[in-house]
Amino acid sequence: MIVGFIGFGEVSSTISNILSRNGIQTVTVVKGRSEKTNIRAIKSDVQIIDSYDALVKGSDVVISANSPANALNVAKKVSKLMDNGIYIDLNNVSPDTTLKMSQLFEKPQETLPKIEEKHSFFKKQEDVDMRNMFVDGAIIGKVSNDSTTILFSGQRSGDLAILNNYGLNIMIVSNKPGDVSTLKTLRSLYTKGVSAVLMEAYEASKEIGMVDQLFEILSLTEGETFEEKSKSRIRNSYKNSNRKVEEMDEALEFLDKISPKGKKNFMTKAARDKFNDVK
Amino acid sequence: MIVGFIGFGEVSSTISNILSRNGIQTVTVVKGRSEKTNIRAIKSDVQIIDSYDALVKGSDVVISANSPANALNVAKKVSKLMDNGIYIDLNNVSPDTTLKMSQLFEKPQETLPKIEEKHSFFKKQEDVDMRNMFVDGAIIGKVSNDSTTILFSGQRSGDLAILNNYGLNIMIVSNKPGDVSTLKTLRSLYTKGVSAVLMEAYEASKEIGMVDQLFEILSLTEGETFEEKSKSRIRNSYKNSNRKVEEMDEALEFLDKISPKGKKNFMTKAARDKFNDVK
Repeated sequence: MIVGFIGFGEVSSTISNILSRNGIQTVTVVKGRSEKTNIRAIKSDVQIIDSYDALVKGSDVVISANSPANALNVAKKVSKLMDNGIYIDLNNVSPDTTLKMSQLFEKPQETLPKIEEKHSFFKKQEDVDMRNMFVDGAIIGKVSNDSTTILFSGQRSGDLAILNNYGLNIMIVSNKPGDVSTLKTLRSLYTKGVSAVLMEAYEASKEIGMVDQLFEILSLTEGETFEEKSKSRIRNSYKNSNRKVEEMDEALEFLDKISPKGKKNFMTKAARDKFNDVK
Repeated sequence: MIVGFIGFGEVSSTISNILSRNGIQTVTVVKGRSEKTNIRAIKSDVQIIDSYDALVKGSDVVISANSPANALNVAKKVSKLMDNGIYIDLNNVSPDTTLKMSQLFEKPQETLPKIEEKHSFFKKQEDVDMRNMFVDGAIIGKVSNDSTTILFSGQRSGDLAILNNYGLNIMIVSNKPGDVSTLKTLRSLYTKGVSAVLMEAYEASKEIGMVDQLFEILSLTEGETFEEKSKSRIRNSYKNSNRKVEEMDEALEFLDKISPKGKKNFMTKAARDKFNDVK
């Protein structure tokens, strides 16, 4: 199996390193990318090639992990080039954008190549609906952690379970593209809301010189690792507040769509305002 | 040592049962109280007496655990009757109210009785400043749990560490009355904020039929007990939303006092609105 990466940031390089360590060939293109990305790729076992065209046509699985802003454009280009295999989007995009990407890959059954595999890895079975090659994925937890879980949804996501044999920790959520993106957004309502709450409690305790005491008292019920984990969350929230504002904006858009009329999403709105306030 | 309880609800009866199981005499007054309280007292080993006057004068430690609304009035009455011992307020009141109560017990040194102890439990030491008998306490975690930690602050709180020998789990925070109340308020910024965030994430996931998936995905990073604990928090938040609104109002008052001018406490305000919205 050959896995091609579009974008070779932290997410791609971590996954690529795990896969190549476990015997899978990985490829990427770094032409025109930052020096940092180039160095990262050189230090990896990834094969550096010159053309995205070759990457898409030569890979069994193409993974897009670049930036939310580029996700849709990359999907557009790849969907035109790709006639087989699986396209995974790992970018942190909204359920809406995910569905747009998925639609790009909805090709009529008859245009698909007649069974001959480029590589024998994914044995086609009669009952597999091959129409949509799009799979949306989400990494749960820290990406640098080897035991991190990756969720997949989409018609061909089941095929990706095989990656569990190659060092990854895959969970198949459903065969409906967009489910993982939705789940990730729901999750962020909790995780980012808690980060914003933590910031506010931390700021208040700092104001009166009781930061240590606050963490000590919370650790009594929240567990021994609470202080360390929370402080890392708080630091991260201040550092990435710009990105978090954008993510909360997307979450609010999603909530507006699914909420009954008149429902106010107080906490998510406040978390957005909180991150915006410390920008 | 004799410990007298003013109010014999869940908090008092739990502590009373632990103490009497460990050899300490406890007393209370249930005259005029609800049938439920009367039955609870009868089923306990607590000694039921007829007069608050006798309770205050006959106890080494008086614990007030009735309701936030009554806390200040009870403290007023007891401060007039009490001339020795320790008065503990365990009610869920604001740092401001706590300081008001503490002031009631600020008596000039010379009016204190001349050393003869009613009971020999608390040996007076020369260097102990006896002026203020007031101690504020807070129970961290579920009150029904034997291993629950009780925090104390106040000039005589150090004397209460002895209760660790009688089945309780005491932590002395400082000798400054109000510190525990402040810490409890800071803690509630986190715990109640998280409850409100949980409610919102839960409501959104319910809207699209993904409640189970949300908890499953969150449990991956938040731990195995997350689902159970969170669901209990959510249930509790809906059930006690009235009380939570009052508590958040007090927390906001506190934040207004300590925050720099112009600082908006987004999350705490939103939590208040959230609890208010589901009342």
